[in-house]
Amino acid sequence: MPEFRKDPITGRWVIIATDRARRPSDFSREQVVIRGGRSCPLCPGNEQKTPPEILAYRQSGGANEPGWTLRVVPNKFPALRVEGDFNRQGEGVYDRMNGIGAHEVIIETPDHQTTLADLPEKRVEDVFWAFRDRILDLKKDRRMQYLLIFKNHGESAGATLEHSHSQLIALPIVPRRLQEELEGSRRYFEFKERCLYCDIVRQEMETGARVVLETQSFLALCPFAARFPFEIWILPRRHHSHFEETDPPSMANLAWVLRVILRKLDRVLEKPAYNFIIHTAPVQESPKEFYHWHIEVAPRLTRIAGFEWGTGFYINPTPPEEAARFLREAGLG
Amino acid sequence: MPEFRKDPITGRWVIIATDRARRPSDFSREQVVIRGGRSCPLCPGNEQKTPPEILAYRQSGGANEPGWTLRVVPNKFPALRVEGDFNRQGEGVYDRMNGIGAHEVIIETPDHQTTLADLPEKRVEDVFWAFRDRILDLKKDRRMQYLLIFKNHGESAGATLEHSHSQLIALPIVPRRLQEELEGSRRYFEFKERCLYCDIVRQEMETGARVVLETQSFLALCPFAARFPFEIWILPRRHHSHFEETDPPSMANLAWVLRVILRKLDRVLEKPAYNFIIHTAPVQESPKEFYHWHIEVAPRLTRIAGFEWGTGFYINPTPPEEAARFLREAGLG
Repeated sequence: MPEFRKDPITGRWVIIATDRARRPSDFSREQVVIRGGRSCPLCPGNEQKTPPEILAYRQSGGANEPGWTLRVVPNKFPALRVEGDFNRQGEGVYDRMNGIGAHEVIIETPDHQTTLADLPEKRVEDVFWAFRDRILDLKKDRRMQYLLIFKNHGESAGATLEHSHSQLIALPIVPRRLQEELEGSRRYFEFKERCLYCDIVRQEMETGARVVLETQSFLALCPFAARFPFEIWILPRRHHSHFEETDPPSMANLAWVLRVILRKLDRVLEKPAYNFIIHTAPVQESPKEFYHWHIEVAPRLTRIAGFEWGTGFYINPTPPEEAARFLREAGLG
Repeated sequence: MPEFRKDPITGRWVIIATDRARRPSDFSREQVVIRGGRSCPLCPGNEQKTPPEILAYRQSGGANEPGWTLRVVPNKFPALRVEGDFNRQGEGVYDRMNGIGAHEVIIETPDHQTTLADLPEKRVEDVFWAFRDRILDLKKDRRMQYLLIFKNHGESAGATLEHSHSQLIALPIVPRRLQEELEGSRRYFEFKERCLYCDIVRQEMETGARVVLETQSFLALCPFAARFPFEIWILPRRHHSHFEETDPPSMANLAWVLRVILRKLDRVLEKPAYNFIIHTAPVQESPKEFYHWHIEVAPRLTRIAGFEWGTGFYINPTPPEEAARFLREAGLG
């Protein structure tokens, strides 16, 4: 029997299509293959093909020269721009304003052939430190209400460059998905006086069926109302609303967890395209008792079709308990 | 300068990336090619490969025999099922219930090679009458709160069978996207005492820049805050909250409009994959002064990537004014 499941945070219903339960091998999908870097603008030696760097971790060389291990540059074709005024305007029933914001690219490695899953642990940790450095810098611009960090890996996940990178978009508006999470978890806190995410962590560790792995500081699980097959969330076990509060031992642990998760996905689903995003509290706000930052990872195995688009409902052909079992059994990768 | 635009109905912001304005030829995309019907379960002669028909318009033959021009059958692999009880249950912080609902397939033509855009006008009209017939029948089941009609055309729009068909999913819940539209348009009505969609129709006909075509009964336009390049909405010019209220002359006019729109898309974008959905008021509710049924059509030219998934924000590289101009200039198709 198919099942409706309600996401306790946002109230979103999903359909878990238990009747046509899908195993990893049932998905026809893109296998991400790195083809090679003829004139890749993110490769060392091509630093002049990007706008000047904002941040770099380097072993040698000067700014915008080779020798870096990680580099952050403005997006050459930004969706938003830092300069200018909002200039809010009405036009009959419509509202518009200038596209003020920021759009940055975090180049995770100088090596064109290496994916994030294949980087040494310390380099993955550097990626997280770069996220934090950029958040702390962009936070100084009080217009920036929300900073979204995300990664598109593989063409079917929306990546246009194959050299491993993630992105940061700074927005003058708290986006809708975050508002839904903030409102849902605030309502729960008002009723229960507990953080909903902390309750999820406790309940999942107790039942175990959806747990992929747990460490001292993090829990990785397939969420109860997963929208996508093999969707995974990584939650800090201790309550923090903002990603940038993460301390050095936890950051090292987070790098280990993400790397293992990506390697498990590579193994179970044969190097799938995927997206991940960091959901954290709005950057200008003080720590929140009711909100809990986390990472959401989703391999791109199914397509968003008319039903999902028309309703906001999702149909997930793989129960998260099945997905978690496959991922647990995949070993540490 | 990129621009933020706010959808007046849902309050959703989109980014119109005016700097990298994209023309039809700039999109790399699937061209939908019909390959052929070896043992297609939707072809005449193969009626036994689907569950028994619920409805058929036919020129000859008996039930589940060839001779039909349109046929409605239950989905063989339904996302939801009609039989059973909800059996709502809690499990700690989680909620679940049985997947009660209905999932039907409207086979639009017996001819495997013909797309909806290529059907004669009268046959397109029949498709709309079949939607109405199924709505009036399913409405009798008081558990069904929302009926979503949608079409996936082409593999990248999520179609798994190439024989031209649309689908109907009956849900025991009013889905989130609809709730957003209902709430937004109710708030506007409370403030202005006018239907927001009627105001949009008036303003768009006055300014003209986003109009694709207008007829006696319908307006087709590229919406101000379009999420997708070449997104088109078809709105009835007279106020009606429910699609099933459409009278015979308007239904004939609607068939003409949709057919022309699909032929224009085929011409401008070279037979793209697309989705369309009908948004109508919840089926069990009485006519609403504040809500206005409509069709949304979107060719699949861009991919939903991490940013869209993580925020609910969309980045649209083609301003709707540009898209409307290309579509107007394409002739009647």
